[in-house]
Amino acid sequence: MHNSNSINHLASFATIDLFRQQRTGMPEIIYAASKTTAQTIAIAEHILSHHRRVLVSRATAEMVPALLAHFANYQITRGTADRIITIASPDSQVVAIQAQVGIIAAGTSDLPAADEAATVCYELGCQVHRVTDVGVAGIHRLFEPLRQLLLVPVDVIIVAAGMDGALPAVVTGLVDVPVIGLPTAVGYGYGAAGEAALGTMLQSCAPGISVVNIDNGIGAGAVAARIARLAHQARTKETSQ
Amino acid sequence: MHNSNSINHLASFATIDLFRQQRTGMPEIIYAASKTTAQTIAIAEHILSHHRRVLVSRATAEMVPALLAHFANYQITRGTADRIITIASPDSQVVAIQAQVGIIAAGTSDLPAADEAATVCYELGCQVHRVTDVGVAGIHRLFEPLRQLLLVPVDVIIVAAGMDGALPAVVTGLVDVPVIGLPTAVGYGYGAAGEAALGTMLQSCAPGISVVNIDNGIGAGAVAARIARLAHQARTKETSQ
Amino acid sequence: MHNSNSINHLASFATIDLFRQQRTGMPEIIYAASKTTAQTIAIAEHILSHHRRVLVSRATAEMVPALLAHFANYQITRGTADRIITIASPDSQVVAIQAQVGIIAAGTSDLPAADEAATVCYELGCQVHRVTDVGVAGIHRLFEPLRQLLLVPVDVIIVAAGMDGALPAVVTGLVDVPVIGLPTAVGYGYGAAGEAALGTMLQSCAPGISVVNIDNGIGAGAVAARIARLAHQARTKETSQ
Amino acid sequence: MHNSNSINHLASFATIDLFRQQRTGMPEIIYAASKTTAQTIAIAEHILSHHRRVLVSRATAEMVPALLAHFANYQITRGTADRIITIASPDSQVVAIQAQVGIIAAGTSDLPAADEAATVCYELGCQVHRVTDVGVAGIHRLFEPLRQLLLVPVDVIIVAAGMDGALPAVVTGLVDVPVIGLPTAVGYGYGAAGEAALGTMLQSCAPGISVVNIDNGIGAGAVAARIARLAHQARTKETSQ
Amino acid sequence: MHNSNSINHLASFATIDLFRQQRTGMPEIIYAASKTTAQTIAIAEHILSHHRRVLVSRATAEMVPALLAHFANYQITRGTADRIITIASPDSQVVAIQAQVGIIAAGTSDLPAADEAATVCYELGCQVHRVTDVGVAGIHRLFEPLRQLLLVPVDVIIVAAGMDGALPAVVTGLVDVPVIGLPTAVGYGYGAAGEAALGTMLQSCAPGISVVNIDNGIGAGAVAARIARLAHQARTKETSQ
Amino acid sequence: MHNSNSINHLASFATIDLFRQQRTGMPEIIYAASKTTAQTIAIAEHILSHHRRVLVSRATAEMVPALLAHFANYQITRGTADRIITIASPDSQVVAIQAQVGIIAAGTSDLPAADEAATVCYELGCQVHRVTDVGVAGIHRLFEPLRQLLLVPVDVIIVAAGMDGALPAVVTGLVDVPVIGLPTAVGYGYGAAGEAALGTMLQSCAPGISVVNIDNGIGAGAVAARIARLAHQARTKETSQ
Amino acid sequence: MHNSNSINHLASFATIDLFRQQRTGMPEIIYAASKTTAQTIAIAEHILSHHRRVLVSRATAEMVPALLAHFANYQITRGTADRIITIASPDSQVVAIQAQVGIIAAGTSDLPAADEAATVCYELGCQVHRVTDVGVAGIHRLFEPLRQLLLVPVDVIIVAAGMDGALPAVVTGLVDVPVIGLPTAVGYGYGAAGEAALGTMLQSCAPGISVVNIDNGIGAGAVAARIARLAHQARTKETSQ
Amino acid sequence: MHNSNSINHLASFATIDLFRQQRTGMPEIIYAASKTTAQTIAIAEHILSHHRRVLVSRATAEMVPALLAHFANYQITRGTADRIITIASPDSQVVAIQAQVGIIAAGTSDLPAADEAATVCYELGCQVHRVTDVGVAGIHRLFEPLRQLLLVPVDVIIVAAGMDGALPAVVTGLVDVPVIGLPTAVGYGYGAAGEAALGTMLQSCAPGISVVNIDNGIGAGAVAARIARLAHQARTKETSQ
Repeated sequence: MHNSNSINHLASFATIDLFRQQRTGMPEIIYAASKTTAQTIAIAEHILSHHRRVLVSRATAEMVPALLAHFANYQITRGTADRIITIASPDSQVVAIQAQVGIIAAGTSDLPAADEAATVCYELGCQVHRVTDVGVAGIHRLFEPLRQLLLVPVDVIIVAAGMDGALPAVVTGLVDVPVIGLPTAVGYGYGAAGEAALGTMLQSCAPGISVVNIDNGIGAGAVAARIARLAHQARTKETSQ
Repeated sequence: MHNSNSINHLASFATIDLFRQQRTGMPEIIYAASKTTAQTIAIAEHILSHHRRVLVSRATAEMVPALLAHFANYQITRGTADRIITIASPDSQVVAIQAQVGIIAAGTSDLPAADEAATVCYELGCQVHRVTDVGVAGIHRLFEPLRQLLLVPVDVIIVAAGMDGALPAVVTGLVDVPVIGLPTAVGYGYGAAGEAALGTMLQSCAPGISVVNIDNGIGAGAVAARIARLAHQARTKETSQ
Repeated sequence: MHNSNSINHLASFATIDLFRQQRTGMPEIIYAASKTTAQTIAIAEHILSHHRRVLVSRATAEMVPALLAHFANYQITRGTADRIITIASPDSQVVAIQAQVGIIAAGTSDLPAADEAATVCYELGCQVHRVTDVGVAGIHRLFEPLRQLLLVPVDVIIVAAGMDGALPAVVTGLVDVPVIGLPTAVGYGYGAAGEAALGTMLQSCAPGISVVNIDNGIGAGAVAARIARLAHQARTKETSQ
Repeated sequence: MHNSNSINHLASFATIDLFRQQRTGMPEIIYAASKTTAQTIAIAEHILSHHRRVLVSRATAEMVPALLAHFANYQITRGTADRIITIASPDSQVVAIQAQVGIIAAGTSDLPAADEAATVCYELGCQVHRVTDVGVAGIHRLFEPLRQLLLVPVDVIIVAAGMDGALPAVVTGLVDVPVIGLPTAVGYGYGAAGEAALGTMLQSCAPGISVVNIDNGIGAGAVAARIARLAHQARTKETSQ
Repeated sequence: MHNSNSINHLASFATIDLFRQQRTGMPEIIYAASKTTAQTIAIAEHILSHHRRVLVSRATAEMVPALLAHFANYQITRGTADRIITIASPDSQVVAIQAQVGIIAAGTSDLPAADEAATVCYELGCQVHRVTDVGVAGIHRLFEPLRQLLLVPVDVIIVAAGMDGALPAVVTGLVDVPVIGLPTAVGYGYGAAGEAALGTMLQSCAPGISVVNIDNGIGAGAVAARIARLAHQARTKETSQ
Repeated sequence: MHNSNSINHLASFATIDLFRQQRTGMPEIIYAASKTTAQTIAIAEHILSHHRRVLVSRATAEMVPALLAHFANYQITRGTADRIITIASPDSQVVAIQAQVGIIAAGTSDLPAADEAATVCYELGCQVHRVTDVGVAGIHRLFEPLRQLLLVPVDVIIVAAGMDGALPAVVTGLVDVPVIGLPTAVGYGYGAAGEAALGTMLQSCAPGISVVNIDNGIGAGAVAARIARLAHQARTKETSQ
Repeated sequence: MHNSNSINHLASFATIDLFRQQRTGMPEIIYAASKTTAQTIAIAEHILSHHRRVLVSRATAEMVPALLAHFANYQITRGTADRIITIASPDSQVVAIQAQVGIIAAGTSDLPAADEAATVCYELGCQVHRVTDVGVAGIHRLFEPLRQLLLVPVDVIIVAAGMDGALPAVVTGLVDVPVIGLPTAVGYGYGAAGEAALGTMLQSCAPGISVVNIDNGIGAGAVAARIARLAHQARTKETSQ
Repeated sequence: MHNSNSINHLASFATIDLFRQQRTGMPEIIYAASKTTAQTIAIAEHILSHHRRVLVSRATAEMVPALLAHFANYQITRGTADRIITIASPDSQVVAIQAQVGIIAAGTSDLPAADEAATVCYELGCQVHRVTDVGVAGIHRLFEPLRQLLLVPVDVIIVAAGMDGALPAVVTGLVDVPVIGLPTAVGYGYGAAGEAALGTMLQSCAPGISVVNIDNGIGAGAVAARIARLAHQARTKETSQ
């Protein structure tokens, strides 16, 4: 900020990353909500000069047309409400791994968060299996799609739910794979910001569920992707690290 | 407190109760938690000199043996953990009404609250139908008992649940009668005092559910009893007031 | 989202609804707040191709003129602040049932929520009796209108109140029918989002009240409608299910 | 603590109190909850060597018999649950002032806090007029005693209430004198620690009410006493300071 | 809402106000925040057809010019940030009473709330004495103005403060008249919505303070006005009711 | 409760568990906190008549000696503070699976929760690798033990932490396997009940972490066990269900 | 507000500041968020007529161009997102003191708050050393820049962090100088407003850290400046006051 | 826990502490609250075999006599309510440094926390200057002792306060040295657990204050000690690290 020589900006020294020589799976993601359109485009271009694919999460309504225009020569895939956008070189491809992820969204309002999660898993190479609109208000509708997920079989299931947030606990009680609860900020009144959904998921009677923060679809996808990669490595005799 | 004549205790004048000439159904209940054993016994005796039955809620562990001894000549019925105790003249009987109440407890920890509700309904004359231990951790176990409740058919269902508190929303989505959510203070960590259960019930996606406060089994029973009496009066052509 | 064949969208299989062959009363409601005008109109049209009446709740200010124009050939009934809008075929009629619902709004600010509740009850066929602007700041004004409600007699009373939220407790203490507390997000400072009103209703000294979430007029109406239908069925010898 | 001369305890210098040459009314009060019995007795003796009367609030159950024995030669007046105890020289008297305070307790559970307030007002010399057990669960019972308070007439009214805490708002809407809301930690579940009562009082629709903290009967009494003294001074032509 | 004759609007019957034949002091106030400009003007006109003065609180920025234009023939007095506006007939006058109110604002950000309180007191006829910008960040600046307030002498002091909200406790410790704490929603971070100020005022070590809700300047003024009128009545031998 | 034939206890019908023919891994656990010693022993005996091993969590101090005496002929393994106790037939053995779980406890106060998790994983057959006392107050001490965990390599890491709860985020940033944050109720003041630790874990900057509720070591172990079993099945070519 | 002579504005008397004859270091700061552009410019001009430098914090987007234009003849230095702006006479200079402050920002989102702190320290004359983007998601990157800060050596370190807020605890464990935690309102979901970061900093296991309120960069800078001045005075033999 | 070789306890490898070759000042402290008497004594003995002095914080009432008996040959210094106890070899001495710390306790209830802070500072070698019982309920009493603290002059001031917690803000406005706010869990009702005091300190209008967690006297002392050591090093030309 100040150019005065009384403020020293210490160089960000190259540090040897002993623990992760290469990140094997987590795609590059730009969190656009706190950036200008120009900044977002510049960062995306910079990443695309090194990688062939980049994700943009939480682009504002103003930002989207500019992104589409600027990256017209790229493959663009847009999640619900544009909450996650994939920009990919036309000839780039995701390298598939031997892993299956199930993603259940309780209602259509939960799709933006669920799409964040799905995109992260897809970019890692997972097969993603989606189920939508099977909330607890008509729980009997859950069984057939859930049975199909188990027939795949999926390695892990993400369940996104707002309002009462009751679906993940129900699913956890019915399956044996790891379940990731993804509460969403859908509702009104007491607990409207997603904390009712978060609370019920943390209190789940059924052991085998863990949760991420409200609306943190990226986080849910990252956890599922780590689990999926573990399964892939076990299947292909790769070592875990 | 002060006997000084500078503090006047205004007499509690008899007031004409325009709205409720006679309470038709709500039994007399002594809230014992904030009373001594002697006070509780004295009040119970006073009530039994006018009524033939009295309920004692939240008696302390010390209080119970004294109550049992003192009222040895009465019929005593004790709810789970003695949270509600009925003291009745040996020859007294509840006057049955034409109304059916279903009460579901998600787990055994929810029984004290559920018993409070059941006792209030029973004292009013309702037929009470109980289901226990059918939480969402194994939701498929819910269906057969619930089907039986609907075959009665019940007029109203109380669902007591702690931890994730997800059961009432599931039940509401499966039935068409009024559902009363009764959250209980069972759980630990975030939301342990029952507020996670309360939150999920207030946020229920399924319309048709209302809630009472955490652990307020008396209140849940009172609401159910008002609904049941309404049905009874409609069936027997009584007027509502 | 992704068209890639590595994401499978499991078909939403037809499921046999064992518990509710036909929903007998709850009207179709579109929650418009999270939808575009085009989406809302499309869904309304779709519903109107199967049903003769549809409700739209929480339409945005921008949406209302478009709805009015698009459905100019329909009967339109608008609640306070357009929070609930009924779109009905000109020749459609609600099938009246033998049930009476009382709805009390403490102040004019509580009317949007109260109108949601009233509309749901009306659509089910209930007779709805309204009282407005009788808050506890002048409690004596409550008695005459409340006496009239009891003379109807009403089967159930919804009481909407924000700010101190004290009215439902007062009403519950004066009547014997079920009371549904509907807290509203009216107020400022501590408890401004309706949680003070919610808290006082949950803590009500008078047994016989249950509550729905803040501003959830739809939910309050749905509970009242279930109770009303129960009374209707009892009066007309229908079975409950 | 340390006797080492490296820790200096600065003397508590005599300071000239420019604003209050003499406190005219607030009695001496010992907050016993965080003291031992020996400390409490020692402090009480010290005060009684300078004043003829002292109050002890929140004495523990263990402490009370010791106080009674030690001060056997004094007049002892005990509030509900011994939450406030007056120890007075046998020949001491309160100097009456021309001021009237009304104190309403919604339920018997509110008496300990109400007694704290009453005692503070009494010690200042106010006439205190008490009304008990007139909660909103039967609001019609309030009117006659309240009318009598207004006939005194009282200068200020304290209203103690727990649970729903709705009574102070109702009273404020019916009278024109200042009302002090005194929420109590009575209740269970959501808002059980008195915050539901506090919230509804702070949100009161009726202007003319202010509140003190939960269970702060001493504080409510002190405010009422300041108001009462103001009225007394105005009546007797004293100046306010 | 519905014109259907199946919804009855019970007439708001004239009720005899046994407790307050005439409100002697509280001015008419329109809460404009939830009203349109047209509604606000219409209500103001209606009130001015019966009274000679009316207050408008929380007028929106859009509303103010329209009010000024519409009531150009009236005396208009505007509080800070137009949060309270007085519209008075040119020849109307406030009837002075023998009562003095002190109002201290800790900072300039607290002026909108303080002005609400001042206006209510002024309209009742009180002499109002203002002190501004004497927060605890330089507590020594408080003493001289406070000394002057005590020389008036004032009957009651309102202290408005946001941020740390510490000033009311300090003032209460220095004076003997009733103090009303008025917390304001000024600050950021933890406690930013005024709850830190509210909390510290409720916890005040100095007995003699009561509080109103955050930013509730109207309420603070109403309490002060009730106290002031009490003093006035005592001075002029009027009875309290 | 009531033996009266007006309360029907619907039989808990045998239901066909379509989704989990056999739970493959989750051990039987008795939650002893809400049970009497007699009940706990009876349930443990009942389970041991069907299984060879049972876990008892949250046994009270009174309960432990009775358990040790009653099951003197069994192998007893006790976790820190007896929060989890394993009772096993002398000749019973855990069936090892090919899976490795790392469990890090930030401090010794986190050991009871960490031991719950370790025991669940051990009972499933996982190899469990423990690291203790490596909190962020000396973060450099973390690296060597963490490097060793990665050399195993572990399939999943549980990190238990109270107080600041910062360790799981740090670990997640250094490894690529799934991390499960286990907040503990260790600390004092603001956030003392574990909610500060929970909050920081939910907000973790490093993607790849999910959390369980405060002190829910059983839940953390169950999630880890599901992940471990997935890896085992992939390695041994079993199918997931 | 009212011009009526019934409202007296007590003159703000000159008070002798016994404790701080001259503030030695804290620069003049205008909090612009609650002011109009005209007010901000007027106040800045007023200050610049007495001082040569002034800071403007939290200028709105609309305000900045007007400030730049109006003070075109001054040196303008702008912090990230213009949250703090320095306006200085062209020939004015900060008087350097012998003190070194380190400021670490966990991420780029924390820069606005960190810049507030840096500017306050710079204006006092401190040497400021900045490190940016070293959050716990890759904690190994922290060590080299931190080692350089310690080689300066710095007298105090401010650590700004949002999201998990874990960095200050880590830094405190690695250094021996005072650390000031500056939580920022960066994040979403549970704890999104900065309270998760605040909580973890208050709970820090490592002794030697104190915190300021969320986003209070001015406050963090002021504390660091007081510490730095203390060190300067000790080095230059000045007395502390 | 398990001795089975399927659970490996990774050795806690010696790690080279690059940043702090020797901690220069922070004394060894045993947090006794979560330990048994035997454990506490064993740890104290272990530390005393390497150091000549050890602190025990939060010893339980049962633990104190055992400590006194066991270490009868040592110098024992006990803080208020035994919340901090110093055990020192008879011939050990604290090495004084050139630094002065002021510690103000608003009331006697704040002494346990203040004593924790004082002891930590004393053990580091600071001169500690204490002021007690100068809360804002009589703010004028603060000035003379505060003036004396400034005459020392002190390098830093810790201010411990519960209830309204207003004192630290007042002090910060009157002095120029760093102030550390130490909120204590003293009070009742809203904010009783110290969060009202914490909130008002975080919101302080006066810049120059930072805070530690509620009742964290150890932490306050550690921060003050780091500041004091900085001043000492500056005075004696030592380098900071």
